[in-house]
Amino acid sequence: MGGMKLYGMPMSTNTARVIGVLNEKNVEYEFILVNLGKGEHKLESFLAINPFGQIPAFEDGDLKLFESRAITKYIAYKYMSEGTDLLHMGDLNEGATVDLWVEVEAQQYNPQISVIVYECLIKKLFGDVTDETKVEACCAKVAPILDVYEDRLKTCKYLAGEKFSLADLNHCAYTEYLMRTPKADLITSRPHVLAWWKDISSRPAWVKTAAGMQFPHIA
Amino acid sequence: MGGMKLYGMPMSTNTARVIGVLNEKNVEYEFILVNLGKGEHKLESFLAINPFGQIPAFEDGDLKLFESRAITKYIAYKYMSEGTDLLHMGDLNEGATVDLWVEVEAQQYNPQISVIVYECLIKKLFGDVTDETKVEACCAKVAPILDVYEDRLKTCKYLAGEKFSLADLNHCAYTEYLMRTPKADLITSRPHVLAWWKDISSRPAWVKTAAGMQFPHIA
Ligand SMILES: N[C@@H](CCC(=O)N[C@@H](CS)C(=O)NCC(=O)O)C(=O)O
Ligand SMILES: N[C@@H](CCC(=O)N[C@@H](CS)C(=O)NCC(=O)O)C(=O)O
Repeated sequence: MGGMKLYGMPMSTNTARVIGVLNEKNVEYEFILVNLGKGEHKLESFLAINPFGQIPAFEDGDLKLFESRAITKYIAYKYMSEGTDLLHMGDLNEGATVDLWVEVEAQQYNPQISVIVYECLIKKLFGDVTDETKVEACCAKVAPILDVYEDRLKTCKYLAGEKFSLADLNHCAYTEYLMRTPKADLITSRPHVLAWWKDISSRPAWVKTAAGMQFPHIA
Repeated sequence: MGGMKLYGMPMSTNTARVIGVLNEKNVEYEFILVNLGKGEHKLESFLAINPFGQIPAFEDGDLKLFESRAITKYIAYKYMSEGTDLLHMGDLNEGATVDLWVEVEAQQYNPQISVIVYECLIKKLFGDVTDETKVEACCAKVAPILDVYEDRLKTCKYLAGEKFSLADLNHCAYTEYLMRTPKADLITSRPHVLAWWKDISSRPAWVKTAAGMQFPHIA
């Protein structure tokens, strides 16, 4: 039983997505380290929470959750009136627009950006070599997507409108790492996307989250 | 302005996902055909609704939406008390569990199944050849995921618990086509997954939706 428990690693993007929401809400939770390097995500005890054997996983009393975007939505909904409102459900259309851009992150942005981050950054942790062909293919696919973002962010400050929302926040974890790769120009070459990134990544809750996203030293 | 308008093609999986919800809710809407074969999804007029140039897209008065899962959620939420309740938001934990399995479809099931369907079925429409290596790789990735489904469906009738929900419905469109491929055994070899599929695909709203999922005759 007890309060909220988050299982994962602070340097894991999908874990950081959840920590970002917890920090915006400023609510208490217990963090339980699940060390991927030691294979702790494939232990019986962890599979009992997430049968897919991935981090993050989450408990709140009897409720067991996984999938980072289901967890962020749950926390944003449960604590709707504490900290930053991330869902804007007071208005049907505003709430639907937040959901829309949450989906855009999951369906359009993340499939490409996650591969770029994996190839350019994560692989090096294991002394592996970046597959440049793969990286270029993802960059080519995500460029027109980011052009849509640029147009959108010309007309409104945040993805879902004038208010910061879960849609913006869900982008932070992978973008944080993308900015540490040679492909950061996907963001920096688009003025409105860059201004948006500077805005959302300088929120105190994200600064605090990003501080935990440290890689072991890479020689 | 006016009522709900759905833009797409009935044979498109992502469009059918939305039609499935509209049929469960039994609400009125206007269907506007966007013919991919004629490139109508790349016309200015369509890009004004979905700048990513994909079907489905959706309007409800002033609200413009795209991304099939954002649209299904919107309709399920707006018409919560009409037709089948698909969200179970009356209970915080039940609602979160629906959201969780909606995410599992989007993050675990769909990325593999959509490639299998594309390779084994859609490509043939264009006289293209199935990439068998790709199909086998997806089958290998999705097998352990479906083993988790099998275990889950041993303990409850539907993915989110004892009640049919949006999580089940969101699986229908791609599974409908998967069953018409040589890889249908991913479903039929798992007794509880098969029983679940037989149950959810025989709901009158889905039978009606599937009747519209007809391919042009393939020689
Ligand atoms: N769709 C999942 C993805 C979770 C995921 O890929 N987690 C990674 C770490 S960031 C992991 O656990 N990888 C180990 C594995 O898949 O075996 C989510 O959003 O939570
Ligand atoms: N994530 C989107 C995917 C939409 C999608 O891929 N639609 C296909 C038809 S099923 C399409 O429009 N393809 C044409 C294209 O991408 O140019 C959704 O769920 O709506």
